[in-house]
Amino acid sequence: MNYEKLLAVAYAEAKAGFDEGGVPVGAALFDSEGVLLGRGRNRRVQDNDPSVHGETDAFRKAGRQTTYRDKILVTTLAPCWYCSGLIRQFNIGTVVIGESVNFEGHRDWLIEAGVKIIELNDALCIALMRRFIEQSPHIWFEDIGECHSA
Amino acid sequence: MNYEKLLAVAYAEAKAGFDEGGVPVGAALFDSEGVLLGRGRNRRVQDNDPSVHGETDAFRKAGRQTTYRDKILVTTLAPCWYCSGLIRQFNIGTVVIGESVNFEGHRDWLIEAGVKIIELNDALCIALMRRFIEQSPHIWFEDIGECHSA
Repeated sequence: MNYEKLLAVAYAEAKAGFDEGGVPVGAALFDSEGVLLGRGRNRRVQDNDPSVHGETDAFRKAGRQTTYRDKILVTTLAPCWYCSGLIRQFNIGTVVIGESVNFEGHRDWLIEAGVKIIELNDALCIALMRRFIEQSPHIWFEDIGECHSA
Repeated sequence: MNYEKLLAVAYAEAKAGFDEGGVPVGAALFDSEGVLLGRGRNRRVQDNDPSVHGETDAFRKAGRQTTYRDKILVTTLAPCWYCSGLIRQFNIGTVVIGESVNFEGHRDWLIEAGVKIIELNDALCIALMRRFIEQSPHIWFEDIGECHSA
């Protein structure tokens, strides 16, 4: 499987989110053959909806699936607890992570649950997220539930 | 705080979901004074959307909040990993659980993260969920990511 090619789909979502003024996290769900099932992005700003992270949006767009064990979730940024919980509850078999530099996520917790993790340490993902955090730190911290208002 | 009164709001959502043929889990988010911020229910069946659990729907309906530490999330059923992750990521201070008989949830994991848990062991919640699981086991197992086909 060419994971970089799958990541490009998630990155295009993240970039579209950035251009809309939103939190630039994109994700996509694929079957075991790499066929796209759903793609999505964080919509906190765009829809004023705190419940839509990149991963949950891709999961939604893929519709109801019988099983997720053979599915591949690709995300530009390491999943937060909310999205890690989604992965664990629905037993998503493989998670491809664009980067975990700007947000570390919960890799060990997912591995412990039997999830196969592939980290790509992608320079484009790192740069896009860093740019957003620098220009809109308050929105970023809101998105991960950290209150940084002083 | 009268938690039973808050639970009644979540239960009304669960009951509405049941009457629609959906998974009967309802939830509501309140501020520290018990003022309702958002209410919602599982919409897997109704909207064909696997991403909408009762808790995530109530969270969405409450809109963007600066902090959740002083908020109370009330749910008719013990939260799954997906919803437990939501609670932990956004540091929701208090979670009121209608019942954990039909689904045990992850109480210890939430307590460890500093969440105050109140269990009501509510007979109406138990009976409604039990009725749904008995009549539609395949939808219930799909909703918690368990493949019981075959």
